[in-house]
Amino acid sequence: MANLYQYDDMVALSTLSINRNVLEDTIPNEVKEKLNQLVDDLESGVFPAFSISSRDEDIVGLHLLVENWKKNFKNLIVIGVGGSSLGAQALVNFKGKFAKNSMDIYFLDNVDPTTVDGLIQNLPLTETVVLSVSKSGSTLETMAQTLLFFEAFKVQGLPVENHIVGLTENKTNTLRNFLESHNIPILNHPEGVGGRFTVLTLVGLIPAIVAGVDAVKIRQGALSVLESFLNSPYQSDSFYGALLSVYLSEEKNIQYMMPYSDRLRKFSEWFVQLWAESLGKDGVGTTPVSAVGSTDQHSALQLLMDGPKDKLVTLIVPDSFDEGSQISSELANQVGIEHLKGLNLGKLIYHQAQGTADALTAAGVPVRTFYTQKLTEEVLGALIMHFMLETAVAGVLFDVNTWDQPGVEEGKKRTLEYLMTSHNEKKAPV
Amino acid sequence: MANLYQYDDMVALSTLSINRNVLEDTIPNEVKEKLNQLVDDLESGVFPAFSISSRDEDIVGLHLLVENWKKNFKNLIVIGVGGSSLGAQALVNFKGKFAKNSMDIYFLDNVDPTTVDGLIQNLPLTETVVLSVSKSGSTLETMAQTLLFFEAFKVQGLPVENHIVGLTENKTNTLRNFLESHNIPILNHPEGVGGRFTVLTLVGLIPAIVAGVDAVKIRQGALSVLESFLNSPYQSDSFYGALLSVYLSEEKNIQYMMPYSDRLRKFSEWFVQLWAESLGKDGVGTTPVSAVGSTDQHSALQLLMDGPKDKLVTLIVPDSFDEGSQISSELANQVGIEHLKGLNLGKLIYHQAQGTADALTAAGVPVRTFYTQKLTEEVLGALIMHFMLETAVAGVLFDVNTWDQPGVEEGKKRTLEYLMTSHNEKKAPV
Repeated sequence: MANLYQYDDMVALSTLSINRNVLEDTIPNEVKEKLNQLVDDLESGVFPAFSISSRDEDIVGLHLLVENWKKNFKNLIVIGVGGSSLGAQALVNFKGKFAKNSMDIYFLDNVDPTTVDGLIQNLPLTETVVLSVSKSGSTLETMAQTLLFFEAFKVQGLPVENHIVGLTENKTNTLRNFLESHNIPILNHPEGVGGRFTVLTLVGLIPAIVAGVDAVKIRQGALSVLESFLNSPYQSDSFYGALLSVYLSEEKNIQYMMPYSDRLRKFSEWFVQLWAESLGKDGVGTTPVSAVGSTDQHSALQLLMDGPKDKLVTLIVPDSFDEGSQISSELANQVGIEHLKGLNLGKLIYHQAQGTADALTAAGVPVRTFYTQKLTEEVLGALIMHFMLETAVAGVLFDVNTWDQPGVEEGKKRTLEYLMTSHNEKKAPV
Repeated sequence: MANLYQYDDMVALSTLSINRNVLEDTIPNEVKEKLNQLVDDLESGVFPAFSISSRDEDIVGLHLLVENWKKNFKNLIVIGVGGSSLGAQALVNFKGKFAKNSMDIYFLDNVDPTTVDGLIQNLPLTETVVLSVSKSGSTLETMAQTLLFFEAFKVQGLPVENHIVGLTENKTNTLRNFLESHNIPILNHPEGVGGRFTVLTLVGLIPAIVAGVDAVKIRQGALSVLESFLNSPYQSDSFYGALLSVYLSEEKNIQYMMPYSDRLRKFSEWFVQLWAESLGKDGVGTTPVSAVGSTDQHSALQLLMDGPKDKLVTLIVPDSFDEGSQISSELANQVGIEHLKGLNLGKLIYHQAQGTADALTAAGVPVRTFYTQKLTEEVLGALIMHFMLETAVAGVLFDVNTWDQPGVEEGKKRTLEYLMTSHNEKKAPV
């Protein structure tokens, strides 16, 4: 399991003009105490979002649930926003766009009426099951959409208790009350775990298993990184990564996350939420930007190379060297391009990543790279754990509460105010 | 046509402590001369990417092409990266995820082998036509993918000249030479227009027409904004918008583009490329970030509200007040939430945008808003022209060459070097 990826931040680190071996010594004692506390808590299982990676006995139950769905339904709709959706999306996306899934999976993570009505009108509801995810059970968007689907099932005379499953904390809340009163089954959201940290729990894994992802291997990959961190936290990649981001943050307030694989597009978005919502507090934090290589070389590379030097770039480069169909030598000769001979796209995208790393480095942009093995479930699990740990460590270094999100509440409050006073309004102001 | 959107940057502008009415006077004379030159050039049609919005006689030809495809094919694959793809994606995305298109459209804008092989293996090639787009005709990714599809058609014994169409400049180049030698038809890419500015030309419009977008109305919406700009450039929203971004750029080096509609997700990505690749030069430019409301309220809002005050936020809020199915009063009563009574999702997302604008403003984050009419083709065209003009004006204010992209070339050069030396390598370094 060792060596799922090679992490290299040496070039980026040189921007700080300090040696990796003495990084630990640069940390004030009171911060070190907090870091030690974090390590202890992770070790003793205080954070189930992390420690769950050492378990697998719950996976069988998830498989049974999914097997039952597959017998009865063709479509799964996951209703949920942010953390209730992005982790699952990251895992499902790993199978690739053209994977043959046993069911078609739709994530309803926005309240755009076009999308929601589109789903209700276009899917055969008889063949559709809805998983409604809200940690608190009070998320307005999730409640609204759940009610709309509830009604749509009713209108077609379908038994709602077969077509909806809830996933919320095991406490009295609006979603739970409603579903219980209609005998709709409810799964328990892990208690006290913020949505953005639930990817390794049933929240992320149920849709993943539907898509055919090996959940056990995801956890195994994650566990290998957690164990390596717990064995020697101050020599771990997650620790170095967090230090790098935090120490650079005054000069580099932007962090590009750029995996070279379509199958990691949603992983990138998951990371953006994890980092932004966990660390963007008390005036600190850096702005994570989700990108994908090689596509975004044609969108953002000009800015990265020639624009302000305000960015740390993280490249994830899976070993794709032998993947993809080859271009025939005959055709390469016809177009007169020598290096297209026998070229496969895996090699091309791999070399594009290398070229980008070189070009950015030469331009003085701090770049760190994860060269991974071929993109397997273990690798994805390892990357997930790496960045969950990096975020937790960065929280201590930034001295913020990694686990809450007070800034989101203000927007919700004002939305409610508008909703309360809007019932008499007929039109929008334009 | 007037009033497709109301642009409001007053709150954001107050961050600069200056009056909108005297903004023009803050511009040095030599910069004003360059701005006047830009206006003259736009007026006299030097930039076909802009002036094409006043034309419509070419649209009929595009429709004929598409009608012919629809008779023979079920799938359209658009091969092309960056500007050769994002404009078209923005227009197609406007129809929404569940629009009934006459053909299924796939954009191959990355060289991930999983995606490309997935398409080749999963689509019935007999029912598939490929549009291969490269301005220069030398883009390595586009060439490689075109050759792979060429071969796939050949292997199945299909007449390639019916299944591939090229779109490249009317000059000798690799793509053109290859296609011509196989009698494959080629359309002319507008000459001298960088890919990221081609959305209103056939590059953007052909896939748009396939998706059922009204191309004439897109151009009309764009033209209305162009005319308004040319009538009084120094009182135009595009001018104010550019000034705001540029004047704030030292303190606010990040710009969030956050439309409140799933149908503008790709518009947001199109803007990111337009802005980043046009302005990220000579150490200036700001970093555009693509987001979508309300989804990203649960991802980025915490960071926007509580994190560093280094961002300008742009909200696009289409009038969706009356859109979407309503939640019945009975269900709202059951869950005991008064403001869900009769709520439709269009109203919810609209109020979320208002709530976010208020909350950010109260937190001292500069926000500008586009409150638009209902999301029609005219509105989308107007937004497209607004940001093309804003980018052009910002280029003058930043004193960079808006139209080139030298920073992208270095990465390409290094990729080639790796490709040249990789033929003997067997493995990636991990």
